[in-house]
Amino acid sequence: MSKNLTSRSEDYSKWYNELVVKADLAESSGVRGCMVIKPYGYAIWEKMQAELDRMFKETGHTNAYFPLFVPKSYFEAEEKNAEGFAKECAVVTHYRLKTDPNEKGKLIVDPEAKLEEELIVRPTSEAIIWSTYKNWIQSYRDLPILINQWANVVRWEMRTRLFLRTAEFLWQEGHTAHATKAEALEEAEKMMNVYATFVENFMAVPVIKGLKTESERFAGADETFCIEAMMQDGKALQAGTSHFLGQNFAKAFEVKYATKEGKQEYVWASSWGVSTRLMGALIMTHSDDNGLVLPPKLAPIQVVIVPIYKGEEQLEKVRTHIQPLVEELKKRGISVKFDDRDTQSPGFKFHEYELKGVPVRLAVGQRDIENNTFEVARRDTLTKETVTGDQIVAHIQQLLEDIQANIYNKALEYRNTHITEVNSYDEFKELLETKGGFLSAHWDGTPETEERIKEETKATIRCIPLDAKEEAGVCIYSGKPSTKRVLFAKAY
Amino acid sequence: MSKNLTSRSEDYSKWYNELVVKADLAESSGVRGCMVIKPYGYAIWEKMQAELDRMFKETGHTNAYFPLFVPKSYFEAEEKNAEGFAKECAVVTHYRLKTDPNEKGKLIVDPEAKLEEELIVRPTSEAIIWSTYKNWIQSYRDLPILINQWANVVRWEMRTRLFLRTAEFLWQEGHTAHATKAEALEEAEKMMNVYATFVENFMAVPVIKGLKTESERFAGADETFCIEAMMQDGKALQAGTSHFLGQNFAKAFEVKYATKEGKQEYVWASSWGVSTRLMGALIMTHSDDNGLVLPPKLAPIQVVIVPIYKGEEQLEKVRTHIQPLVEELKKRGISVKFDDRDTQSPGFKFHEYELKGVPVRLAVGQRDIENNTFEVARRDTLTKETVTGDQIVAHIQQLLEDIQANIYNKALEYRNTHITEVNSYDEFKELLETKGGFLSAHWDGTPETEERIKEETKATIRCIPLDAKEEAGVCIYSGKPSTKRVLFAKAY
Repeated sequence: MSKNLTSRSEDYSKWYNELVVKADLAESSGVRGCMVIKPYGYAIWEKMQAELDRMFKETGHTNAYFPLFVPKSYFEAEEKNAEGFAKECAVVTHYRLKTDPNEKGKLIVDPEAKLEEELIVRPTSEAIIWSTYKNWIQSYRDLPILINQWANVVRWEMRTRLFLRTAEFLWQEGHTAHATKAEALEEAEKMMNVYATFVENFMAVPVIKGLKTESERFAGADETFCIEAMMQDGKALQAGTSHFLGQNFAKAFEVKYATKEGKQEYVWASSWGVSTRLMGALIMTHSDDNGLVLPPKLAPIQVVIVPIYKGEEQLEKVRTHIQPLVEELKKRGISVKFDDRDTQSPGFKFHEYELKGVPVRLAVGQRDIENNTFEVARRDTLTKETVTGDQIVAHIQQLLEDIQANIYNKALEYRNTHITEVNSYDEFKELLETKGGFLSAHWDGTPETEERIKEETKATIRCIPLDAKEEAGVCIYSGKPSTKRVLFAKAY
Repeated sequence: MSKNLTSRSEDYSKWYNELVVKADLAESSGVRGCMVIKPYGYAIWEKMQAELDRMFKETGHTNAYFPLFVPKSYFEAEEKNAEGFAKECAVVTHYRLKTDPNEKGKLIVDPEAKLEEELIVRPTSEAIIWSTYKNWIQSYRDLPILINQWANVVRWEMRTRLFLRTAEFLWQEGHTAHATKAEALEEAEKMMNVYATFVENFMAVPVIKGLKTESERFAGADETFCIEAMMQDGKALQAGTSHFLGQNFAKAFEVKYATKEGKQEYVWASSWGVSTRLMGALIMTHSDDNGLVLPPKLAPIQVVIVPIYKGEEQLEKVRTHIQPLVEELKKRGISVKFDDRDTQSPGFKFHEYELKGVPVRLAVGQRDIENNTFEVARRDTLTKETVTGDQIVAHIQQLLEDIQANIYNKALEYRNTHITEVNSYDEFKELLETKGGFLSAHWDGTPETEERIKEETKATIRCIPLDAKEEAGVCIYSGKPSTKRVLFAKAY
């Protein structure tokens, strides 16, 4: 059967785009740069949301909802933040359409319904939220505020790609307010760790924790923590960021609190977010030339059962054979689908579930019924085996755990063999083109050098790893002294 | 202690506005007509979402996500729909800001970043979704499509009120596509029933199921099913609508499918939605002059325990006393909060939880510890009793059920005593001013009569009840013959 999917080695980028569409995850819409997240893709996102939401609540956060629109005057308030997002924001200028006097059935913007102040569709919500926190915070008793929001945001990107970079995307954004610098810093680091735990344990994607350089920081942050992942084409992907905002937004919106001693102090802040971009990381880390490979913990369908039969009578026998298994799996919280569509052949179904990354596939034919067996195929290794009825439940449970561990380990091995220490700029440039991956190199700490390297090679500093050792060295570009290696890579 | 809340009899509208803010549910934002949903209010909405989402999935629906923006040309496609929403939609015209050359630190819309085609912020998503379904539907095998979306929408209302009518609100919108008219109609009616079940069983708000008249129908629908609730001030509130859209959107977007016989037919559609407006219905149906009254099934905190103590040693004794109870309640899925804040007095806490509608409140003092008792207060009746330790768990479980049933029955009784049959227009006008409620009256079936009555009295036809009996009569306004009574009311 034709797999119909461009291979990764042939054209990685094309492979990704095709896979997202063919696996029914998402597609482009009629609105420039905006995607439609299809039910199968959305089901994965829902599972990600549920886990993240649980983790946020376990760490003391509650959800709330703030307006989609940011009045221009609020947007301007924190200057660096405004500067960072001004070039890519959708602006609402009118609040009414009227019928076109010149063309029947057409509508035009009503010039009489022009807003006094333009509204920005939120690209991120610091401004609107800190304008609200101002009224919520008077004294130290009102702190900390630990709030998260699940929302859509809009950034008018010129080059978009499904999940990775879209004009509108879904995300969560945490916004916290604290009495002290130490507490806000601790919160920002804590949430980076929550993200790392989620991405590694649920998405099975290994990440490196680090700090962004000044030029890669979130606009308006004093420090940005990040987690960086490595894709199969040797390019890095920023999977989540958590920002220590200092007192920047408190100062922009005049948010002060009375300390226990009665002094007035500006409030300290953090914000942190992950988005539907994680879907891109999930897809690109594990999938192969046959299609999607999903970690069992996030797969909407963990086990699919395909009957092999001729006629309704044989199908009925399969149904009877699998019924106790289906019930037992459901009891154990394993999501199982029995695909008894008579409009498609077993071969078509095998292909479809491979493409959709269902971790475990069972096939049940007439001989299996006679022998009380199941044919079990695992998606990650594309291997098959025959398992007897008395073993099948335990086997599946173990298999789901094995697959989760296996794809993580595979990704970890790939990532680890794609961190290379380089000590000269020539070596740096060569490796970047031949092998890719993270290049661990000394850098002189200046934005100028960083910018030059970026211009010349397209590689950026992904992060200064939190666990980077002190090591005397010289910058690969300027030859100036350096005490730490940082990670460079081309990135999504 | 001062309750600080305007009473319902004094000023119902003011009571509502104060309650929403004081109970920490929501507040107005700096963006005209947009609200901030605060953590406590959002926690209730999350519980509503979880139940509804479960019910949608049980009836075969899956979630997906479609773009926030609707290009103007899509928006125009279904003419009635466009006409219905054109007057209240937010329009994005530009995609960039730039620094103001005349004023440092200010931004202005960049005139060079004008969109070729304006984008409408979705007031509802039929247009964007049917432009997508067009590509998903070729044959009868692709049908039905049963999709729901949780999203924010924007309708630029001139007079807004927290939860009841806001420029931006949160909702879910189901959009289904079917091969036959019968199936689409059945779907629309089924989802109205799902809404009714949810609103009655979880929100404890009784509703009347009915059909809208032509002039009250959703713009673009052939038939609108609705559920109507009655508030404590005698005004009706539309709690949910489900629309049979006929082939209107299929025709607007040229969505046809090949039947089994190979004929090309237009697809049939339904759409249905409930929104954060339900929060308004919940608040107004049950609450009293002391504050919010929440149905236990939707209360974020079902049981609160307030310790009465002096000093850390006594508090520790309370803690020990309640520990087994807290664990037992959690085991049974009951959410319980132990409020050991030492910054507030017990009296302050009692007042706060009354205001916030927590269904069951326990107080535990030193004598309770000696006697192994708990003082139990229920929010709906404001009554108290003393319960012994061996009875307390069963007592609380029963109490939560009793409160859920009691507030429903109370609302049902109020609603039932506020449906009055009227047979003359004078009686109609008088009752509308004195008693309010639903007025069950004969109507001649014409939009003209409906419009006149609305102009003269502000009462609208809330619905033609699905269970309305055939009954010969004459229209209260025109005297023309009528075969059914319809329900009029002033409404939110």
